[in-house]
Amino acid sequence: VALIDLSRRGFLQKLGIVIGGAGVAGAAAACGSGESANDKLGSYKQEQDARLAAPATSAPAASAGMNHGGAVMQAQPGGHSVADMDRAHEAGVTYYLANAKEMTSRLLPFELDGDTKVFRVTARAMQWETRPGDVKQAYTYNGVLPGPEVRVTEGERVRFIVTNELPESTAVHWHGLYTPNKMDGVPYVTQPPIKPGESFTYEFVAKPSGTHMYHSHHNAMEQVGKGLLGAFIVQPKDKTKYPAFDKEYTLVLNDTLLSFTLNGKSFPATGILKAKLGQRVLVRYINEGLMNHPMHLHGMPMQIVAKDGYPLASPYLCDTQDIAPGDRYDALIECTEPGAWAFHCHTLSHAESPDGMFGLVTALLVE
Amino acid sequence: VALIDLSRRGFLQKLGIVIGGAGVAGAAAACGSGESANDKLGSYKQEQDARLAAPATSAPAASAGMNHGGAVMQAQPGGHSVADMDRAHEAGVTYYLANAKEMTSRLLPFELDGDTKVFRVTARAMQWETRPGDVKQAYTYNGVLPGPEVRVTEGERVRFIVTNELPESTAVHWHGLYTPNKMDGVPYVTQPPIKPGESFTYEFVAKPSGTHMYHSHHNAMEQVGKGLLGAFIVQPKDKTKYPAFDKEYTLVLNDTLLSFTLNGKSFPATGILKAKLGQRVLVRYINEGLMNHPMHLHGMPMQIVAKDGYPLASPYLCDTQDIAPGDRYDALIECTEPGAWAFHCHTLSHAESPDGMFGLVTALLVE
Amino acid sequence: VALIDLSRRGFLQKLGIVIGGAGVAGAAAACGSGESANDKLGSYKQEQDARLAAPATSAPAASAGMNHGGAVMQAQPGGHSVADMDRAHEAGVTYYLANAKEMTSRLLPFELDGDTKVFRVTARAMQWETRPGDVKQAYTYNGVLPGPEVRVTEGERVRFIVTNELPESTAVHWHGLYTPNKMDGVPYVTQPPIKPGESFTYEFVAKPSGTHMYHSHHNAMEQVGKGLLGAFIVQPKDKTKYPAFDKEYTLVLNDTLLSFTLNGKSFPATGILKAKLGQRVLVRYINEGLMNHPMHLHGMPMQIVAKDGYPLASPYLCDTQDIAPGDRYDALIECTEPGAWAFHCHTLSHAESPDGMFGLVTALLVE
Repeated sequence: VALIDLSRRGFLQKLGIVIGGAGVAGAAAACGSGESANDKLGSYKQEQDARLAAPATSAPAASAGMNHGGAVMQAQPGGHSVADMDRAHEAGVTYYLANAKEMTSRLLPFELDGDTKVFRVTARAMQWETRPGDVKQAYTYNGVLPGPEVRVTEGERVRFIVTNELPESTAVHWHGLYTPNKMDGVPYVTQPPIKPGESFTYEFVAKPSGTHMYHSHHNAMEQVGKGLLGAFIVQPKDKTKYPAFDKEYTLVLNDTLLSFTLNGKSFPATGILKAKLGQRVLVRYINEGLMNHPMHLHGMPMQIVAKDGYPLASPYLCDTQDIAPGDRYDALIECTEPGAWAFHCHTLSHAESPDGMFGLVTALLVE
Repeated sequence: VALIDLSRRGFLQKLGIVIGGAGVAGAAAACGSGESANDKLGSYKQEQDARLAAPATSAPAASAGMNHGGAVMQAQPGGHSVADMDRAHEAGVTYYLANAKEMTSRLLPFELDGDTKVFRVTARAMQWETRPGDVKQAYTYNGVLPGPEVRVTEGERVRFIVTNELPESTAVHWHGLYTPNKMDGVPYVTQPPIKPGESFTYEFVAKPSGTHMYHSHHNAMEQVGKGLLGAFIVQPKDKTKYPAFDKEYTLVLNDTLLSFTLNGKSFPATGILKAKLGQRVLVRYINEGLMNHPMHLHGMPMQIVAKDGYPLASPYLCDTQDIAPGDRYDALIECTEPGAWAFHCHTLSHAESPDGMFGLVTALLVE
Repeated sequence: VALIDLSRRGFLQKLGIVIGGAGVAGAAAACGSGESANDKLGSYKQEQDARLAAPATSAPAASAGMNHGGAVMQAQPGGHSVADMDRAHEAGVTYYLANAKEMTSRLLPFELDGDTKVFRVTARAMQWETRPGDVKQAYTYNGVLPGPEVRVTEGERVRFIVTNELPESTAVHWHGLYTPNKMDGVPYVTQPPIKPGESFTYEFVAKPSGTHMYHSHHNAMEQVGKGLLGAFIVQPKDKTKYPAFDKEYTLVLNDTLLSFTLNGKSFPATGILKAKLGQRVLVRYINEGLMNHPMHLHGMPMQIVAKDGYPLASPYLCDTQDIAPGDRYDALIECTEPGAWAFHCHTLSHAESPDGMFGLVTALLVE
């Protein structure tokens, strides 16, 4: 807890929020920057904005600080007061609501060589910001994390020219895909490793349909932990064999060398999911980490319709879906409830510290 | 292991069991206090009681100690002998069998305001004994842990007046319930936090039916870990849509700041489940912790009939059900086998140390 | 990582592989010893063998070492070069491919006493090699780890005469079996513990059919962690109630005092699964550890047909199956893709270090 606490405080300081001291001005500034987003986020934010604009006696942070701060100071983790804790919590949420962009999947572009879709993937070491001020040593495919999403249709022939610009060897495994054995990406079993400066070409027919992934299979605990991973979505040839949906999101979870990340970002830098009331949203969960993550959506259930890309004969409803390393689950959400709904890992140590939410936290905004 | 070992020994010393020395008298005393419970617990206990009353040569603890104690002394964890280890194991079980009360759910009382059921929930810091002598700093709803169980019927209007007497802010999330967004309990997203000394009123229609929960959603890793949690059971309006059962138990699992607890207690202070031969028992699992807990029932299978309150189209049989943080599973047990059946988390480090069982252990007694 | 690194390097040194120095000769020697196995293992190995016999410029380890070794030396975990890392990875795989024997289940023999099958099980402490050079203090049943597999048919009467030659008490629980309560193996609840030098006789009718297990239920976190465990397979009386298959394997997972083991062995000492093209292979997963293990098969999906021995009404396809402690899953694999397919735990920290694969890694060879 202490470590989380400290890095969280460092993060907040970078946002201009001073904890345990004269932080009100900073917090107010951060709040102010969120005004444009507040409109969209339900009635509480409007009430809160009104309250923030009202005389000091109705501002909860200030009044609580005056009433309770001294007595509480010693009782709190990290030695800061109720008002400080609340301000830290508020700063993260306010930053998120003001800045969160709609999640989108960057697609991996391709060229055609006859009927074959040709993709180019370059692995390289770089710095990656998981949230403002938190910059880590990462490995990426084509400079982004997760790597660009592959989108093809079942039965299409694909070719991947993988170039290694890392300071160590690598190889790519197409997790969930049926490839010829020599395209499977396991060094010394199915191919030599791709040395630094070298390239390797993978080619196969994309099947089966479903939510799959591609990632390193060499020194993989470290290389996948650092970011060598991406979604590989194979759309069904016959779309009637998969439930209908209005829009979709891919959520790649990771938890190791870059800390707890959702599509490469940690709250409050995570994006947001958006839907119109009545829309049916598909969420594709992909766990690329080393821990189970039980993802919990507030407000509405999820219907789990596929595991590892295979449609379930017997779909089931839930509000919390445990996702193990290597697992993929496809979840359909009927967006029947308007508002901004928290959406997070329910292993609470992956989602909240005494200084507020972090890590595997996002939201579904139903408008 | 060393830490578990030590606290276990401390616990046993508080029960009057001296480990590694002249502990026989203490152990005998503890055994004696269990006699009233032994009658109910199958033929072994009767045989054992008879054996304990027989000459010393047939008393296993003493004879094993004489034959093997010296040689084994150095080989054992914590440096104690076979006889000491066995005595420690026995003391825990004997204490449990003598003292375990049938598990019951404390219900949260309500008043009617027209058609609305009005519940009052007060969060406060207090000390909580997880087992004899193990007292922890806890947070509770209405002075108990788990908080009192909410029991309503699908479609009923409910109001919760939550008062915060904690030294920090809080908020309540109704995990699994469909509430209007502003009743969802996420500070700075759907409401301001409830400051120390303040109250907040939640109101919504209770749905869907099933096994749900209520818990803190502010500084939640700590607040839920310390005990701000409770079961929220919504009974179906149409009872024919749920399998029939004769009796039911709610099992809330937790694993953090209060150590491994089952309904707020650690073995041997955990209660016991009881059924008559042929009865059909429903167990509602709720995981409020940070770890997965695969619960294993000896002797009879469980039929898993619902996930997160939603009846499964395809129920399945098992004897071990993994439960992730935030998950709820409803399990039906046909009590066809008489006896006292161990019932525990199969992550053995949550259930047994070299000094005997602790933590997530209970029993189902079929009479 | 540092600890894994070191023991891995120690292991490799025992195999004759010198890391970070003049290791080429050693690596070549190890590679050479794998030639007999390479024939079976797909086209890459033949290409690789050819490449290893070609002039030095085409030998990847040497050329990469020359081009990149110096610059990379400081960047790598453990301070060794790309060439060293690759050599370590290759040595493990080459050793495995050259030495891996087909996995087989050692069966527990029995004598008949009338209609009763009488089995003898002796628990004793001994040293156990999990992979070349890694010798641990273990506990075994009948001198092997896992203990010999029990194979009986539903409805048969079985008797187990368990003798304890350990330096501590023990007891055996028949996990998944319906036994009379006094045969359930829980010390002080259903029986006295079996003291060192003593024996205890269990007798019951074997049911229900399915993949079950037997293991210690006394000081079990340590005793099961050290190896007191075995598979207990009850074949169905009516074989039409279970899917047909051509051959089967039992995979017992463990993760504690003996490190990450699969049938008692850590990669590269783990065995290999073999099938002819078109065969249908049944894999029986049994988790005897303290952690979840999401097992991932490359190349082909698994159809999960039973949980804890109970056939699923609604089987499902997947390529990654999370298995919690105490869980059993039966998986059918249609071996439609020829080649050597990696088969491992997808918690990558249980399967790969910077010096190559270890722990929960095996392969399915489809010929």
